[in-house]
Amino acid sequence: MLKQILVDMDGVLADVYSQFIELELKETGVHLEIQSLYGKIESEAFPHYEKHVLSNGFFRTAPTIPNSIEDLKYLNDRYKVLVVSSATEFLQSLREKIEWLNEFYPFISWKQIILCGKKDAIKGDIMLDDHLKNLDSFDGQKILFTQPHNTYVLKDYFQRVDNWGQIMNIL
Amino acid sequence: MLKQILVDMDGVLADVYSQFIELELKETGVHLEIQSLYGKIESEAFPHYEKHVLSNGFFRTAPTIPNSIEDLKYLNDRYKVLVVSSATEFLQSLREKIEWLNEFYPFISWKQIILCGKKDAIKGDIMLDDHLKNLDSFDGQKILFTQPHNTYVLKDYFQRVDNWGQIMNIL
Repeated sequence: MLKQILVDMDGVLADVYSQFIELELKETGVHLEIQSLYGKIESEAFPHYEKHVLSNGFFRTAPTIPNSIEDLKYLNDRYKVLVVSSATEFLQSLREKIEWLNEFYPFISWKQIILCGKKDAIKGDIMLDDHLKNLDSFDGQKILFTQPHNTYVLKDYFQRVDNWGQIMNIL
Repeated sequence: MLKQILVDMDGVLADVYSQFIELELKETGVHLEIQSLYGKIESEAFPHYEKHVLSNGFFRTAPTIPNSIEDLKYLNDRYKVLVVSSATEFLQSLREKIEWLNEFYPFISWKQIILCGKKDAIKGDIMLDDHLKNLDSFDGQKILFTQPHNTYVLKDYFQRVDNWGQIMNIL
């Protein structure tokens, strides 16, 4: 029986930080340094967070996180992969997220995608996520993917990974 | 601790049969009698199933099932309600389904909505669904909502209800 792994999208597959930084640069001419974003949730870190996260194309044109395509493909042959994304808050994101997955991760079928509000009702053996609020309510193996907002988090009940290479060392 | 109930959309909240029958009538002039649809899955029952289920507005303009609004509101105060819908197969349905819920069931927040491919990864204590494939993989209390496609199903591991009044007698 294959283990079921829940893979987050934003901050694990989709490089939303690069997307926010680029849009802030276009909007204001200011280049936000990654270090200045440490420890702040996205809505605090980015002055135009709400405008950008609600804009058409934000999720559809996000870059992929390095190595996530080939590594998720590898995992998809060895685990029961479900891509689980908090998405129902942002209506325009729903279609964009699936179209984006279809383009970059075509080996993930629609049967493997869950768009939700909260993740505490989703079953799995392993959760890979950059948000503690999701890992906190999960009862399996927890892997925290480093993003600026969680940089200062020190907890001992999850494994922290900084990139997909480190995920592959664990799984 | 409130029990978690997973409520299906199509065939439990949304009267997709009425929607299909109306569209077939408009398309062909033929009024399909409900009795002629017994025991057939929707894709067999409706000649233009795929065209209609993929058309813009199909889910957005579906009628609600009688009494489902007031009864789900009542349950929402007494259970942890999650509305769980198989939706990721039909890209245009995603936004429509949430807009439809917002219009007719405004007491259901985005945090209570799950749009998925398969339902076997969703946790709950009670599942209310018209499809056996969803109830089959669920390990809590199973309630089958009667729709033409499941009319002839005789199984003893679920409770069958024909309308929302009967749901309220159980829950």
